[in-house]
Amino acid sequence: MHILITGAAGMIGRKLTESLFKAGGLGGRAIDGLTLVDVVDPDAPAGFSGKLETRAADIAAPGEGEAMVAGRPDLIFHLAAIVSGEAEADFDKGYRINLNATRQMFEAIRAANARDGYRPRLVFASSIAVFGAPFPNKIGDEFFLTPLTSYGTQKAIDELLLADYSRKGFFDGIGIRLPTICIRPGKPNKAASGFFSNILREPLSGQEAVLPVSEDVRHWHASPRSAVGFFLHAATMDLAPLGSRRNLSMPGLSATVADEIAALTRVAGPKAAALIRREPDPTIETIVAGWPRDFDTRRARELGFRAETTFDEIIRVHIEDELGGKIG
Amino acid sequence: MHILITGAAGMIGRKLTESLFKAGGLGGRAIDGLTLVDVVDPDAPAGFSGKLETRAADIAAPGEGEAMVAGRPDLIFHLAAIVSGEAEADFDKGYRINLNATRQMFEAIRAANARDGYRPRLVFASSIAVFGAPFPNKIGDEFFLTPLTSYGTQKAIDELLLADYSRKGFFDGIGIRLPTICIRPGKPNKAASGFFSNILREPLSGQEAVLPVSEDVRHWHASPRSAVGFFLHAATMDLAPLGSRRNLSMPGLSATVADEIAALTRVAGPKAAALIRREPDPTIETIVAGWPRDFDTRRARELGFRAETTFDEIIRVHIEDELGGKIG
Repeated sequence: MHILITGAAGMIGRKLTESLFKAGGLGGRAIDGLTLVDVVDPDAPAGFSGKLETRAADIAAPGEGEAMVAGRPDLIFHLAAIVSGEAEADFDKGYRINLNATRQMFEAIRAANARDGYRPRLVFASSIAVFGAPFPNKIGDEFFLTPLTSYGTQKAIDELLLADYSRKGFFDGIGIRLPTICIRPGKPNKAASGFFSNILREPLSGQEAVLPVSEDVRHWHASPRSAVGFFLHAATMDLAPLGSRRNLSMPGLSATVADEIAALTRVAGPKAAALIRREPDPTIETIVAGWPRDFDTRRARELGFRAETTFDEIIRVHIEDELGGKIG
Repeated sequence: MHILITGAAGMIGRKLTESLFKAGGLGGRAIDGLTLVDVVDPDAPAGFSGKLETRAADIAAPGEGEAMVAGRPDLIFHLAAIVSGEAEADFDKGYRINLNATRQMFEAIRAANARDGYRPRLVFASSIAVFGAPFPNKIGDEFFLTPLTSYGTQKAIDELLLADYSRKGFFDGIGIRLPTICIRPGKPNKAASGFFSNILREPLSGQEAVLPVSEDVRHWHASPRSAVGFFLHAATMDLAPLGSRRNLSMPGLSATVADEIAALTRVAGPKAAALIRREPDPTIETIVAGWPRDFDTRRARELGFRAETTFDEIIRVHIEDELGGKIG
C-alpha cells in the first residue's frame, strides 16, 4: 500500500512515519510507497525499501492538491497545519493552510474519484480546540463546536467538509480530535500549553521548569505514543460504525497539575518534583481557563481507541520512548 | 441607514424588503439606502424615497464581495443561497454560492474593516438543515451539528466563519436557523417539504392537495411573518448577550401533520380538510424521517425571538397576509 503523510516533519508526523516504517505494514498489507510532505523537507526513514518520496511544499499553492494525490495513495494522514498561536496572529496564513489547502486536497481527491474511482482512506488530525468555553464538566460526544480561535474554527470547518466528502463517497474519512499531547519531547516552547509538558520533561532530565498556573488547573492529555496509536487505529478500523458522524474526540486523561506533580514524585522522586518553580502568569492562567478540562469519549472508546489512564503511565511512556528507559 | 439584502428576490427576501419599506426605518433610524441583490433582478419597492439599487448578480463572481460592500451598508441581511435539493444535486454550484460567495463577502468586509474601520451588522439566514439524525426528542441549544446534506454542511461552515469573523471584530454577526417556513405562499413545488404547506394553502383556496406521509409525522414550523420578525429582531437587538456563540436555532412550532389538519378543520371547516388526498410516497417518508421534529430554543426565546404557538395562528397569518383576510 501507498501512504501519504502531510505535516510529516512535525512531532507526531515523525513518530507516525517511524512507527509505520518499523512495522513495515499496516492492517496486514505491506507498505510499498511512502510520500512525506511538509513545509520543510521531512527526514526520510533510513533503509525503507519501498518507493519513498519526501517533498518540501507549500500545500496551499495551486496544483499541490493534485500533486499530492497524483500517486493515488491508498491512505492519507493529513496532519499539516499552522498551529493555534500562529493562526490567531496571522489570519490569512491560518485560513490559507488550515482551510484552503485542506479543501484543495479534498477537491483533488474528488476530481480523481470522478476520473478513475479513486477513493482513499483519509485520517484527519483535528483538535479539542474545536470546542470553546463554557463547557459542561465532561464534554460529551454530542456537544456543539464553538471554537474560540481561528485555528479551532478552521479545524471544525475541515471536519464538516470531511464528513460531507465522505458522505458523498469521494473518500473514506475520519477526523480525530487529539487531546493536548503530553509529554511533548524537545525543548520548552512558548506555547501557552507548554508548561504541562515542561514541568515533567525538564525535571526528568535534571532541569528546572516553570509552572505558570495553580496546581488545581485541570486539562486533557494523551502521550505522543497514544496519538500515533489513534492514527494507526483510525487507518485500519472498520469505519462503517461511524455512520455519517465522521469526527470524534479521542480518549485522554483528565488530570490536574497536582496530579502531574504527584505522578512525577512517584516515578522520579521528590528531588525531580522540587525542580518545578512556581511563577504565576495571569495571562496564561486566563488562556488556560478557557480550555477543555474533561471529556466523555464513549464513542471513541467503543470504537477501540485507547489512551493512558494515569499520569504515571504518561511519564513512563516518555522515559521509554525519549530517554532510553533511564531518568537523567 | 443603508441596508443590503442578498437573496432579495426570494420569498423571505421579498417579504423582508416590503416590511422594511413599509416601516421606513429600523430600530429608530430612517432607511435612506436599500441595496437588493439576487441572481434575478429583485423587484424594487414602489415609492421608496431613499437611494435604491437593485442588481442581478452572481454573488460568487470575482469582485462581487467588494461590489456588495462598496456602499458600506450598515446592515446586511445575507439570505442568498442555493436550496437544499439543488445543492445536493450540483455539488460545485452549492459550494460555490453557499460557501465561496459567503466567504468572499466576509473577506470583502474584513478588507474594508482594515481600510476604514467598517464594521456592519450581518444577519445570516441559516437553517435547521445544519442538524442531522439521529436526534434527541428535543434538539437543545448545545446539540452538535452533523448535517446530512451539502446544503446543511455549507450553512454550518458559514456559521463557523460568521462566529470567527465576529470574534475578530470584522463585523457584528448573528446567524439564525430558520424552521421550515409554513405556509409557503405560491404554487405547490416539488421540494420534499412542500406538502407541509400544500395541505393547508391549497384547501384554503378550494384546491385539492396531496399528503404523501402519515399524519403522525412531526416537524418544526414557523410562518413567513415570523421569519421576517426573526430577521428584524436580529438586526436591532443587543448582540452582547450572545457572547461568542453567534448562531442559534429560532423558535418554532413542533406539530404533527394531524395537528395541521385539525387546525385547518377548526379554521376553515371539514370541507377544506376533505380536500387533502392521501397518496403515501415511501421516498418522501424516508427523507422526512431524517428531519428534526422538535427543538428546545431557550436561548432564542430569552433573547426575545418569537414564533407561533399553534397551527391555528400559522393558518390565520396566511389568511391575513396572503388571502386578504378571506378564505377562498
